[in-house]
Amino acid sequence: MTTTLITGGTVVNSTGRVLADVLIDGEQIAAILPPGSVLLGTDLSASVDQVIDATGKYVIPGGIDAHTHMEMPFGGTFASDTFETGTTAAAWGGTTTIVDFAVQYAGEDPLTQYEAWHAKAAGKCAIDYGFHQILSDVQPASLQAMDELVAEGVTSFKLFMAYKNVLLSEDGQILTAMQKAADNGALIMMHAENGSWIDTVVQQLVADGKTDPLYHGISRPWQAEEEATHRAIMLADYTKAPLYVVHVSAKQAVAQIAAARDNGQNVFGETCPQYLYLTLEDQLGAPGFEGAKWVCSTPLRSKAEGHQDHMWQALRTNDLQLVSTDHCPFCMNQKQMGLGDFSKIPNGIGSVEHRVDLLYQGVVTGQISLERWVELIAVTPARMFGMYGTKGVLAPGADADVVVYDPNGHTSIGLGKTHHMNMDYSAWEGFEIDGHVDTVLSRGSVVVDGGQFLGRAGHGRFVKRDLSQYLV
Amino acid sequence: MTTTLITGGTVVNSTGRVLADVLIDGEQIAAILPPGSVLLGTDLSASVDQVIDATGKYVIPGGIDAHTHMEMPFGGTFASDTFETGTTAAAWGGTTTIVDFAVQYAGEDPLTQYEAWHAKAAGKCAIDYGFHQILSDVQPASLQAMDELVAEGVTSFKLFMAYKNVLLSEDGQILTAMQKAADNGALIMMHAENGSWIDTVVQQLVADGKTDPLYHGISRPWQAEEEATHRAIMLADYTKAPLYVVHVSAKQAVAQIAAARDNGQNVFGETCPQYLYLTLEDQLGAPGFEGAKWVCSTPLRSKAEGHQDHMWQALRTNDLQLVSTDHCPFCMNQKQMGLGDFSKIPNGIGSVEHRVDLLYQGVVTGQISLERWVELIAVTPARMFGMYGTKGVLAPGADADVVVYDPNGHTSIGLGKTHHMNMDYSAWEGFEIDGHVDTVLSRGSVVVDGGQFLGRAGHGRFVKRDLSQYLV
Amino acid sequence: MTTTLITGGTVVNSTGRVLADVLIDGEQIAAILPPGSVLLGTDLSASVDQVIDATGKYVIPGGIDAHTHMEMPFGGTFASDTFETGTTAAAWGGTTTIVDFAVQYAGEDPLTQYEAWHAKAAGKCAIDYGFHQILSDVQPASLQAMDELVAEGVTSFKLFMAYKNVLLSEDGQILTAMQKAADNGALIMMHAENGSWIDTVVQQLVADGKTDPLYHGISRPWQAEEEATHRAIMLADYTKAPLYVVHVSAKQAVAQIAAARDNGQNVFGETCPQYLYLTLEDQLGAPGFEGAKWVCSTPLRSKAEGHQDHMWQALRTNDLQLVSTDHCPFCMNQKQMGLGDFSKIPNGIGSVEHRVDLLYQGVVTGQISLERWVELIAVTPARMFGMYGTKGVLAPGADADVVVYDPNGHTSIGLGKTHHMNMDYSAWEGFEIDGHVDTVLSRGSVVVDGGQFLGRAGHGRFVKRDLSQYLV
Amino acid sequence: MTTTLITGGTVVNSTGRVLADVLIDGEQIAAILPPGSVLLGTDLSASVDQVIDATGKYVIPGGIDAHTHMEMPFGGTFASDTFETGTTAAAWGGTTTIVDFAVQYAGEDPLTQYEAWHAKAAGKCAIDYGFHQILSDVQPASLQAMDELVAEGVTSFKLFMAYKNVLLSEDGQILTAMQKAADNGALIMMHAENGSWIDTVVQQLVADGKTDPLYHGISRPWQAEEEATHRAIMLADYTKAPLYVVHVSAKQAVAQIAAARDNGQNVFGETCPQYLYLTLEDQLGAPGFEGAKWVCSTPLRSKAEGHQDHMWQALRTNDLQLVSTDHCPFCMNQKQMGLGDFSKIPNGIGSVEHRVDLLYQGVVTGQISLERWVELIAVTPARMFGMYGTKGVLAPGADADVVVYDPNGHTSIGLGKTHHMNMDYSAWEGFEIDGHVDTVLSRGSVVVDGGQFLGRAGHGRFVKRDLSQYLV
Repeated sequence: MTTTLITGGTVVNSTGRVLADVLIDGEQIAAILPPGSVLLGTDLSASVDQVIDATGKYVIPGGIDAHTHMEMPFGGTFASDTFETGTTAAAWGGTTTIVDFAVQYAGEDPLTQYEAWHAKAAGKCAIDYGFHQILSDVQPASLQAMDELVAEGVTSFKLFMAYKNVLLSEDGQILTAMQKAADNGALIMMHAENGSWIDTVVQQLVADGKTDPLYHGISRPWQAEEEATHRAIMLADYTKAPLYVVHVSAKQAVAQIAAARDNGQNVFGETCPQYLYLTLEDQLGAPGFEGAKWVCSTPLRSKAEGHQDHMWQALRTNDLQLVSTDHCPFCMNQKQMGLGDFSKIPNGIGSVEHRVDLLYQGVVTGQISLERWVELIAVTPARMFGMYGTKGVLAPGADADVVVYDPNGHTSIGLGKTHHMNMDYSAWEGFEIDGHVDTVLSRGSVVVDGGQFLGRAGHGRFVKRDLSQYLV
Repeated sequence: MTTTLITGGTVVNSTGRVLADVLIDGEQIAAILPPGSVLLGTDLSASVDQVIDATGKYVIPGGIDAHTHMEMPFGGTFASDTFETGTTAAAWGGTTTIVDFAVQYAGEDPLTQYEAWHAKAAGKCAIDYGFHQILSDVQPASLQAMDELVAEGVTSFKLFMAYKNVLLSEDGQILTAMQKAADNGALIMMHAENGSWIDTVVQQLVADGKTDPLYHGISRPWQAEEEATHRAIMLADYTKAPLYVVHVSAKQAVAQIAAARDNGQNVFGETCPQYLYLTLEDQLGAPGFEGAKWVCSTPLRSKAEGHQDHMWQALRTNDLQLVSTDHCPFCMNQKQMGLGDFSKIPNGIGSVEHRVDLLYQGVVTGQISLERWVELIAVTPARMFGMYGTKGVLAPGADADVVVYDPNGHTSIGLGKTHHMNMDYSAWEGFEIDGHVDTVLSRGSVVVDGGQFLGRAGHGRFVKRDLSQYLV
Repeated sequence: MTTTLITGGTVVNSTGRVLADVLIDGEQIAAILPPGSVLLGTDLSASVDQVIDATGKYVIPGGIDAHTHMEMPFGGTFASDTFETGTTAAAWGGTTTIVDFAVQYAGEDPLTQYEAWHAKAAGKCAIDYGFHQILSDVQPASLQAMDELVAEGVTSFKLFMAYKNVLLSEDGQILTAMQKAADNGALIMMHAENGSWIDTVVQQLVADGKTDPLYHGISRPWQAEEEATHRAIMLADYTKAPLYVVHVSAKQAVAQIAAARDNGQNVFGETCPQYLYLTLEDQLGAPGFEGAKWVCSTPLRSKAEGHQDHMWQALRTNDLQLVSTDHCPFCMNQKQMGLGDFSKIPNGIGSVEHRVDLLYQGVVTGQISLERWVELIAVTPARMFGMYGTKGVLAPGADADVVVYDPNGHTSIGLGKTHHMNMDYSAWEGFEIDGHVDTVLSRGSVVVDGGQFLGRAGHGRFVKRDLSQYLV
Repeated sequence: MTTTLITGGTVVNSTGRVLADVLIDGEQIAAILPPGSVLLGTDLSASVDQVIDATGKYVIPGGIDAHTHMEMPFGGTFASDTFETGTTAAAWGGTTTIVDFAVQYAGEDPLTQYEAWHAKAAGKCAIDYGFHQILSDVQPASLQAMDELVAEGVTSFKLFMAYKNVLLSEDGQILTAMQKAADNGALIMMHAENGSWIDTVVQQLVADGKTDPLYHGISRPWQAEEEATHRAIMLADYTKAPLYVVHVSAKQAVAQIAAARDNGQNVFGETCPQYLYLTLEDQLGAPGFEGAKWVCSTPLRSKAEGHQDHMWQALRTNDLQLVSTDHCPFCMNQKQMGLGDFSKIPNGIGSVEHRVDLLYQGVVTGQISLERWVELIAVTPARMFGMYGTKGVLAPGADADVVVYDPNGHTSIGLGKTHHMNMDYSAWEGFEIDGHVDTVLSRGSVVVDGGQFLGRAGHGRFVKRDLSQYLV
């Protein structure tokens, strides 16, 4: 068991910051000490195996990305990051836990699929990982599986209001899953877009020869997101289930979430870095087929409609509670399946490596406070998904997942620079960050330091999660 | 310098809880240690001067009551608690810091008054104390004083929209104070009731022979609070000043605050225990003159109108951010100034001793989580009023203001029981709490333990506050 | 050609009232004259064939009931009023025009069905009638039919968000119908309840042995109406189609409509007498199977939830624009199909005879003004559905559909009293109205007078309607 | 007594239009006849004294301008139109009734002032006129006067939330006036701007050398209007008084009014042509002192803030109910009192002549329907201010105030063109209208026809008004 002391840094949590040393004993945090680590005359720094000097830097709980899709099968291909490449890239970027999605497509058995996902991930991950379970076309067997999975530490279930015959659940099916969640305490995650609406517009656009990537965005208007968000909220109101809306991108959807929250409902929302920085006009509308790089759903929203500023505001006002990536990368040869028909472009953007940095840039530009940054990327994800205490906090007994972040460092994002995801392009090419992930520890082991990856596939363990600790 | 170890307890902060020991060295927290306090083979528990066993109990940062009025002159008399009696009672109840109000009445000089309040408090307080400054009838000198007082650690200024010729500032005066606050970073606190409206209704009621204490409540309808709250919010929107609305009691006022917050404004609200538990019908409407005990402003609200549940909800949804007491006690012989004319009853309720307990009962009944309790009574008050790091947190370097709270204890509130405030009645007579303040430390000194008050007048020091740490 | 003079009455329209005589020449209004009918020295009263003395009474345009279902096939039976019995009852109650629904069930051809409905009504109606077209499971042929039907004077199309496989259209299908309406100017009418949600709850209740009529109401919660209303509004916002929500009963659905209207959308709502007077507790919850009398959808709402007062308020504020009956009567032997399973009870209440009276009672009780009464029952229905000028107004050239209403008369509703509908019970048994329909003219013919029905089947003609005249 | 027949026109009211002839007998409408005026074989056209051919034109009730200030004393000068010049100009523009304001400044006696205004107007007016009474600094005598004035036919009272020491009433004073209005049925009209706020900003701007006309607008931000509007609404909610907000210009104020109306309150709002067409940037911000032409309060609003489109929308949605002018003209030599200090520029714009035309242009551009135009300029003003039946409608017994409006005509506004107001400039110079006021009758007399003014000072009579007929 290695002992480590991180000295001289500023420990930041969601309510404030303090100059303190962090003592790690084996895989866990042992203590938060005064700078200098002298306690009652005992100089603990002399006794440790290794000292990490964090002077002038921030010491924060490792990032938790609660929304990733490694190796996800989609439209005849697979997301290009394996659990190994994806978690390695995550570690590079200061993320020490992911919560990925085990997928039960329509017609499949949930528990069988759950096991299949375990098999994929086992022994591959560089950092710790948990699972949400995707349930499609909710059936009685699905409801039974929900109880069993909660016992397994899978306490959140994602449903889809889009993708008919593949992932979609009818409203009545959603209702039954929500009733189960209200009963067993699980959290319902919702892909809130009106699938029937969108499918119809897609058909019309394609029939009309409007096949460029831009039309992916056009086919999924904000109204279709707002509508589904409202519908999910009403179903949650009726069933008393807690609801977590994934990848919120429309300001009107935020307004629905805010209203539900003011009304006392346990309704939450996540946004993603792409909705904070990228737009329909600038990225999806890029010349030729280049826009395909940024085809994801919900889509990038129109700059002219003013969604982006509102997303940042919602992060400040806590109308949105956290930022995940919805990491679902595809290479350009995969994206090219949709040449001539935007609806065949695999949906997804790869960001798992850059989330911590991209959000930190919001601290630099004054969009969010330093404390809110930590809350958004680590504390709330841990609480929301039942890991707090073990993850998301620097306190005795917690896993020693720690990031030393240098506000005087610099990070240039892009291929040939920071890029470690298994993608042949970067959706974030050219982004510059006024800060740097210096050192990353996962359960006490240094996995990134000095520009080197020091971790290994298989270090990461499955995280059995409790029920959400964020409910009121 | 005494060293103290609090062992075996559950340390609770606003995001979660952890089993940990707390080491105190002199006046400050030294470290948060693993249970057992063995670090790298060193058993720290052997080296300390005293050990406090908190097994099975909660260890939390000392309560901060951000709204008290010790010895406040009002209507020809004075609030009955001195800084000594009031802070002693506070300590008994687990509150280790108060922020009182230095009062500049219309026509007085702010800085002179500020000095006068320092003189009253100096050497008298059992626990630490800070000051907000009340500014009445804002004048150019007031604006100048704001800059000087911020430099002195008085970073919040309370204005009144009621009490003409005594405390009220006109809207244009409020505007100038807000402009100054937007400039120097101070926080504007607002008594938000429409004074002209209320004064007129009071006159009508008294002329009509409606003079019982109940009519105090009737004379201050929710509309007069909602209106003033909205007005203050609009002035804050225009000036870009942060705004903190005190003693919110009407659900419609909460709705105004919630809307402003969803809109991205730095607008905050506090409520008080009386609005969570007491009502117009049950208390103010008590037979004869007994209702006088609960005459305070904003008034107790009507049960029939449904405000109370909404106050609890707003605490859950963070539409209200903290709970203070507005402690302003008067004895019954003082209250009797208003026999035959409710408008002459000194306004105020004494609660400084019971806030921590009364809010804990909300944890017992499931209204709020344990973490939210700590946030409401200590963490957010510290952040809101620029003390976090020193106060409001258990972390190395913070003041060792600590409460050991026993969830298996019991507290019966009332005269001859827990009552230590200088009042001849208790507004909370008969309230039973399923928990107990066992031990209280103020800057490392045990001031309450084993049912004994072990502190002393003069232990408490003035807290120089920073600007609010809660702004977005 | 008969000439008729209605003398001495108070002519009421939606903006005011005037003492005036009404001259009818043949089937049309000829002129609005001064009381006494002397013009430039010519006494017109001497020249007419008949004089109707309306002294002390109101003279108003005949009622227009824009939502009836005569002989509608439903759940294996038919609504019990034929076009003959139903329109005769309507005439008795002061209604001179109905707009019924031609029904295309899923799988049927719209135009064929439209013709079938014409065949049913032809030669049977005692008063004039128009058709809306119901489109189920919208198909390309439906869209084509919409253009043809608009040309035929059928300018409104009703869609269903409930009743899967029978009437329901998917959201994408609704979208296409709305696009067509936005293009050709038709009005989309919507049955706004979430069918998938309701079907699931119905199954759960029945499985649980909760089969009494009360559970019909329980199975269709306000959330399922509010949700569908919001969804329809968003689809209308996207397509720019005008939207008319039928039989609104939930106050939260009204709030959605009000918000859309404040936002400038052409969104309208109708309520029905049952939602203004009857409740879940008092009627649906009647002992045994009696509640079946009041099984209709949307259902009677809970008194405790406070919908009813809000419906009246919405009529005052114009958040709802008109009152129709949704007349769809079934006899008790038909209702008994649902003994032991509320979901098999034919849905519908018969009110076509009483709407004018029931609304007038709202004038008596002060809920609405006299002018608003006329607006709700005649003027707005005419404008909304493209008949104004011919119907809904007393002006030269308009059809002489006129009601003489006596505010000093009295009407006792119920079997053996006023009841002329083909039902063996009255949903309104025991209601007393402080007013009376004295005389009714349809296109210049007296069809009701002196307590006698003087009309005949076949007098009524099909009304070819223009596009809505109510759009902004 | 002259008899007149207006033939061949389209009579338009607020719900629709009809081809009809209008027969006038003396000062009143006698009948609405079929085109051709043949009734039961009698050709009435042969018997009349004069025939006005309105073929192809609209025949509408004469315009009612419910907000004018003839000869109003303001800031040491007087509005430049006398009752004679102002009402003559009004007639030219199709307005046949004005409601002017009798002014009681602070310290004056209301009834004395009321008599003084009668004296000013008597024998001078070319068209009929009524009075609202302005009450400043409401006193007990004011409340008594309210009862007496209602009996005199002055049923609306205007209060000010701005202009301290001159016109302003404190909130408590407003409260008492509203209580009186709730009691006697009068309508409270409100100038809703926060005077204390604005006065402070004015002082700051002037002290800062920002003295150009543009700063008049800057000194009166939308927040100060929204705030006062909300405050007035809350006072009205508490007192149950009906409330009419004058010259609404901020979209946020409209939102407050809309919310109150959706909530069932009798709250109304008027806007003015200037807020529909002119802006802060384009007019107030004109180079040099030219912006002074458009100094009025509330001020022209910022184009960038997007108020103007919302005003049109609010006219469509009935969130605003009518359009008045707030006609208060000053010549440039009067405006020049404010050279070097915008706060000394007399406030007011002259529009009484152009309102009917300017609103008609909204019909041309599709902003409002033809029927809504008539409603906004004549029907609703009549109903709102208790004149309907006599004014605002073409029906037997109504005053024969009639305008023949030619949609194929054209009107060029400006000096040397249509201008008849006593002003040396036109605020509307260069506006082109695709329509024309051809003929105007006031109580049966042709006052404008063939481009000639045929009326006379003294023809106009005082209109004793009833209580508002628009309340729900």
